[in-house]
Parts: sequence; structure tokens; C-alpha cells
Amino acid sequence: MKATAKAHTNIALIKYWGKRDESLILPMNNSLSLTLDGFHTTTTVEFQEGLEKDTFSLNSVGAEGVELERVSVFLDLIRSQYDIGPIHAQVQSTNTVPTAAGFASSASGFAALAAAATRALGLELDDTELSRLTRQGSGSACRSVYGGFVEWQMGERADGMDSYAVQVAPANYWDVRMAGVVLSDKMKKVSSREGMKRTVDTSPFYNAWVDSIAPDLAGIKDGIREQNFEKVGEIAEANCLKMHATTLGAVPPFTYWLDSTMAVMQTVRSMRDAGVPAYFTIDAGPNVKVLYLPENEEAVHTTLRNIPGVADVILSRTGQGITYL
Amino acid sequence: MKATAKAHTNIALIKYWGKRDESLILPMNNSLSLTLDGFHTTTTVEFQEGLEKDTFSLNSVGAEGVELERVSVFLDLIRSQYDIGPIHAQVQSTNTVPTAAGFASSASGFAALAAAATRALGLELDDTELSRLTRQGSGSACRSVYGGFVEWQMGERADGMDSYAVQVAPANYWDVRMAGVVLSDKMKKVSSREGMKRTVDTSPFYNAWVDSIAPDLAGIKDGIREQNFEKVGEIAEANCLKMHATTLGAVPPFTYWLDSTMAVMQTVRSMRDAGVPAYFTIDAGPNVKVLYLPENEEAVHTTLRNIPGVADVILSRTGQGITYL
Repeated sequence: MKATAKAHTNIALIKYWGKRDESLILPMNNSLSLTLDGFHTTTTVEFQEGLEKDTFSLNSVGAEGVELERVSVFLDLIRSQYDIGPIHAQVQSTNTVPTAAGFASSASGFAALAAAATRALGLELDDTELSRLTRQGSGSACRSVYGGFVEWQMGERADGMDSYAVQVAPANYWDVRMAGVVLSDKMKKVSSREGMKRTVDTSPFYNAWVDSIAPDLAGIKDGIREQNFEKVGEIAEANCLKMHATTLGAVPPFTYWLDSTMAVMQTVRSMRDAGVPAYFTIDAGPNVKVLYLPENEEAVHTTLRNIPGVADVILSRTGQGITYL
Repeated sequence: MKATAKAHTNIALIKYWGKRDESLILPMNNSLSLTLDGFHTTTTVEFQEGLEKDTFSLNSVGAEGVELERVSVFLDLIRSQYDIGPIHAQVQSTNTVPTAAGFASSASGFAALAAAATRALGLELDDTELSRLTRQGSGSACRSVYGGFVEWQMGERADGMDSYAVQVAPANYWDVRMAGVVLSDKMKKVSSREGMKRTVDTSPFYNAWVDSIAPDLAGIKDGIREQNFEKVGEIAEANCLKMHATTLGAVPPFTYWLDSTMAVMQTVRSMRDAGVPAYFTIDAGPNVKVLYLPENEEAVHTTLRNIPGVADVILSRTGQGITYL
């Protein structure tokens, strides 16, 4: 009744932006990500008879309120879907993803939780089933079941049975890297959940965004197959800009960008002008992730670190999928 | 054969962004602007028998090359449209609009040139005809024929005869003001001509932008009629964000924003949070214009002036249309 699993976070190169079903977490479009070695969550789940409720500690600190509730609601889902009785669990997580730094800690968090909980219960889920389950905890987490380049296939069914991730290329296929640029200034946050909902409901650009996914996805998969870094980077950067453009048309409009976000984007463009291939992507927050090649690691690190307003730059290689410890 | 005219620049609150005819300068959408007292061009045109070619001086400096050519090509248009013989002109302009500061100096420039040249030739154009002519020099210049709030009606005809500006409310109707925020950093420029063309040709968001104009225009004209500052400001700011969103979807994507542009936007939002109604708008360049009310002039000026990266803040009242001196 006890198991431990480790999962890595992932950063989308083709963004997930908007749900067609809020409750089942079914997306409006396919997305494609890179799993990152540098950021991971390790979670132990132990089901125990006699526990009155689930407990959750994160980095050895007991969690209450909303944090505990998200974990417990997800365990409810597992108990219900797999006809487990009213048995509760102790959940202990350690997380190397800087919390609230915009590195999608919920992705590694829910992937590790789903894996450890189902293993502890003796359920033998294949990757597809695990990805589908994980999706219902946090959408983009379904991609963290796999290492390397991963595609979340949106599916078409109303019950979500065909909405799960598949691996496009494994972690050892291609040594591309990503720098996480952490900014000093924080902002009044529009959560990704709220942001995508407002965009889907009100932005006149939303339909064009969805229509642009298929060609972007086909192009980036070609780029990955060819190991064509410029092609992958250009498509990823353009896709990110389109996603953020949709928020500028929302009612009321909003943006996740700060002045320092813009400064990092400008610097990445300048690096390219100077002959260093590097491309940015940005999620639902101000921080920036920069895709680069191993031979440029030092140049990229130094350049990013020296931008005013940058608090930290964290480098990562491509990561593996879920492992059980 | 000699006349002098003065015209003020204008800043669009509903943006002109994209041409349906490059040569006649016919727009894809109606636009609406505020004529500004603070920025003007005064131009004297004197036609003289025996001149071999047109000459042009700007702020007492003789102009050659592209600058002279734009003036001469526009005079050719007048000579051709009104069956004037091959007589050339001396053109002298003084311009209080900081050149290349993104304050649409071509708007006041072409409006003053059209007015002075046609007056010098003894043509008696009404405002509609003058606006239609001015449009063919520089699209947004057709709005500078009038003071106050001005709408450029795009028209439907292929020959452009119904594409000209009309006054929505005169300069003395409502004392709203605008601060021009000049940034220290300049950028590698995508001209507005090139930027709008690339956007029309490649951005998946362009059609939605055009479709959003009619409701924005109806709303802002209601706001002007009601003298509802928040309504006018909110619509103008949202319209500007939508225009800039279209460039993020272009192929290749581009933006006119710098980090300091973003800092000014953030500051304007913070001013609003602190109870000072102020709204930004941005044209095809990094500088920002801020719409405010007279009672907040000091607060707005001081706050904008203290943003790092801001070189100058120039305040302006609502301006008149063309005057003859």
C-alpha cells in the first residue's frame, strides 16, 4: 500500500491554451512539450486503514487548505474510478521546481502523485492510462508521464478517453537544453486556469489560434525528426507569441509579460543576431524559458544572467518520464 | 501662387492598421483619432515659373533623397489631379513634432502640405476633398484636416472617392489631454507601412482585428458623446492591444514594444489602480501616448517622467484642424 514515484516537469513548445471541458480537463488543441531533467517532484503515497482523511506534506511542511484539497480531490478521483473503498493516504512530496516560479510544478506534481498512488494501490496502469488519469489532475501534467518530446493528443470524445499524451522522441534522442530565466519582479497573477478561460470566452483571436496549431505541430514534429534546431525553435517561439497575443484581445485584456520579460525576449533575439541560435518560450507567467544547444551553454547562461531584472537562470537537460523508486 | 498652412498631428484611439489598396492608400478599417495641439507642422508652398524641380526644406535644412521625393511625388499627384501644368514649387516646413519620435509627423506634414499647395494654386477644396487628397500622401494624415475627435471613414469604392475623414467632435468639445512618452532606447524599426503589410498578408489574427473595429468604433463614439472618459479610455487601450497582438501572429512575428514600453504600460495600469484614470495607446513604434484628464495632469506627468527608460514626456491638449496663415 506504499509506493514512491519521481516525475519531471515539462515545458510546452506548442502551447496548451484553453479547455473544451473544464471538469474533465479536455483541451481545445494538441500540444507538444519537452520534459526537463532539472525540475522534478518525488512523491510517496501510503494508503493506511484507519486514517480519517488524506494528509499532504510538501518539502517536509504539512499542507492545508487549497493545496491539500487539490491532492485529496485527485485521490478521490482515483478511489472513485478504480472502485477503491474509503481508505485514505499519507502523501509526502519533495519538489525541486521553484514553487510559483512559473515552472509548472503542478505538472511534475500530479504526474508523480498519479504514479505513486496507483502503484501503491496495486493498479497496473499502462502509460496511456496513467497519462489519461494524470490529465484530470492538471492538464499539462499528462505530458510528464513521458521523457523527451511529448505530444498531448486532445482527442475528440466527450468522455476524454482519447485525450492523453504520447512520446514523440525519447530523452536521449537529441541533446537540446533549456534555461529557465527567473525574474525578480513578480506580478499580480491571472492563473493559467482563469487566463485561458477568459481568452476562450472573449478573445476574438482565439479561433485563429486554434486553427494555427495543426501546421505548427506538423512543422515542429518535422523539425524534431530532422533534428533541425532552427526549425524547432522558430516554430516554438512563434507559437508562444501567438498564445500571448490571444490574451491581448481578451475582455478585459491582460498579459503575463513584465518589462523584464520583454528584456529577455529582446536579448534572445540579439543572441540570434550575433549567431547564437536560441529561442524563447513563455507560459502563463512572466518568466521566460530559453531553448539552446549544448555548445552554446556558457554563452547563453552568461548572457541571460546579466540581464537586469533576472534573479536566477536554471539550466536543464532533457528529462526522463516517470520512474519508480 | 504662395500660401502657408498649419496642421496638427493626430493620434488614433481606434487604429488604422492595414491597407486594402497600397497605391491609393485605402484602409481595411475605419479609424478614429484625437488631433493634438502640441505637435504641428507649418508649411509654405510657393509655385514659381522657371523652377526646374521642387525643393523642400524642413526646419530650415534642405532635404534631398527620399524626404524630397515624398514631397515631390505628392505635388505630382496634385498637379495631375487638378490639371496643373509642369510648374514646380518651393516647400518650406517647420515641424514641432519630434522627428522619428513616433508622433506621426507625417500626419501633420502631409495635411499642411496638401492645404498650402492647393491654396497656393487657388484651388478651393472643401474639407472632404482636402481630406481625400491628403489621404493619398499619408493615410492617417487625412484625419489631421479636422480638430478634436475625427473619424476616417474607410469607404467602399475602388477609386477611394468615399475614403476620407469627418469630424466627430470639435477641439473645444471636451478637454481631454495626451502625454507623449518618449523612450531613450530606440529599436530596429519595422516601418508602419511594412508592418501593416506583413500583418495583413500573414497574421492569422488579422480578420478578427478588422471584425472588432465596428463595435469598438460604436462604443467609443458613444463614450465621446457621453463624455465618459473611462469608456473612451478602455476602448482605446483595448483596441491598441488588439492591433499589437496582430503583429505577434505575423510570419515572421514582430513587435514594436521594448521593455520600457512595457514598463510604461504597467505604470499606467498602476495609476488606474491608484485611482487616477489614465489609458495608453501605442502606434507602430515603441513610444507610448497616455490619455488623461486635466485635473490629473501633474500626477500623470510626474509619474510618467520617473519611469526608468523615459527620456521625455510631452503634454498636449486637443488641437484644431488646418488653419491658413
